[in-house]
Amino acid sequence: MTSSNGHRTPHAGLTIWLTGLSGAGKTTIADRLETELVARGRRVEKLDGDVVRQHLSKGLGFSKEDRDENVRRIGWVAHRLTHHGATVIASVISPYRDIRAEARELIGDFFEIYVKCALDVLVRRDPKGLYAKAFSGEIPNFTGVSDPYEEPLFPELTLETANETVEQSVDRIITRLEEAGLLVEPAATVA
Amino acid sequence: MTSSNGHRTPHAGLTIWLTGLSGAGKTTIADRLETELVARGRRVEKLDGDVVRQHLSKGLGFSKEDRDENVRRIGWVAHRLTHHGATVIASVISPYRDIRAEARELIGDFFEIYVKCALDVLVRRDPKGLYAKAFSGEIPNFTGVSDPYEEPLFPELTLETANETVEQSVDRIITRLEEAGLLVEPAATVA
Repeated sequence: MTSSNGHRTPHAGLTIWLTGLSGAGKTTIADRLETELVARGRRVEKLDGDVVRQHLSKGLGFSKEDRDENVRRIGWVAHRLTHHGATVIASVISPYRDIRAEARELIGDFFEIYVKCALDVLVRRDPKGLYAKAFSGEIPNFTGVSDPYEEPLFPELTLETANETVEQSVDRIITRLEEAGLLVEPAATVA
Repeated sequence: MTSSNGHRTPHAGLTIWLTGLSGAGKTTIADRLETELVARGRRVEKLDGDVVRQHLSKGLGFSKEDRDENVRRIGWVAHRLTHHGATVIASVISPYRDIRAEARELIGDFFEIYVKCALDVLVRRDPKGLYAKAFSGEIPNFTGVSDPYEEPLFPELTLETANETVEQSVDRIITRLEEAGLLVEPAATVA
């Protein structure tokens, strides 16, 4: 990432993909992670599943087919941004293993993080009342309740958000990215 | 774009937006322009309207509402790529003035090129037989035939593709980009 005379060259792109149930902490972690990565000189693009839906997937619902198409679109945009050197943080439930695998294959520089939290903990917290509505049937096709969630088999990292703070989760991500050689400390880029 | 010691710093992003009727030459010009810009050290992303439809707009048709939504999605992706320093070449019919204006406002660094060709010339050429099908009614909602095309009022450049070669068109684009200070000659970035 750094030329011999210490001048910073553009970073290689990377997609950090946060998958997990609604309420598990993806968005909160993404926000904090963004701050840490920007401090390390990365150009960050957050692609939040709910936000991107407004831009790219109006009219799509929550059937498997529509969810897959939404995740594919996020994957495609992440791919193009990663190609141009951005560090993409995608936070999207992305419940199906095969579509996450598609995104991984397409993007290449892909770091999958399972944001894991037991359903009973999520149901107890439920700050937006979504799980209550899902169990009552008011919200159909709710991942983890009335729709499947396929856990990652080999994620780069699993965060147990019932047992660790957001700070601890983000520290673990940063450490793993550094170990994988995917981050350059800012100090190293100054001559 | 160039630091005082001649080391190249990342380019600022830019979206070059080619609008015009089907067959007017947008894709051909985009391809040739890409080659020229890559030779000048730009990271180029081509967003072809027909190609992007496959990635972002499956299920959308050609009503005004669906066309607008498709163009909005391309505009949003161009915006994010431009933000990350890419030179985006969007080639998309984008027949409606207000949606092009939306893209311009969103993206900011926006260079609109009207790829202009008279309808009778397009009908005479018609290599894919699309205009014949449009006039027979086999293809409905065809821009310029059964659907409106609103010419740009103040494009950064108008190319008259019935009267100039592709090389001439691309030369004119490069010249205008240089005049606008939007290109840095490769020689200038070497110490």
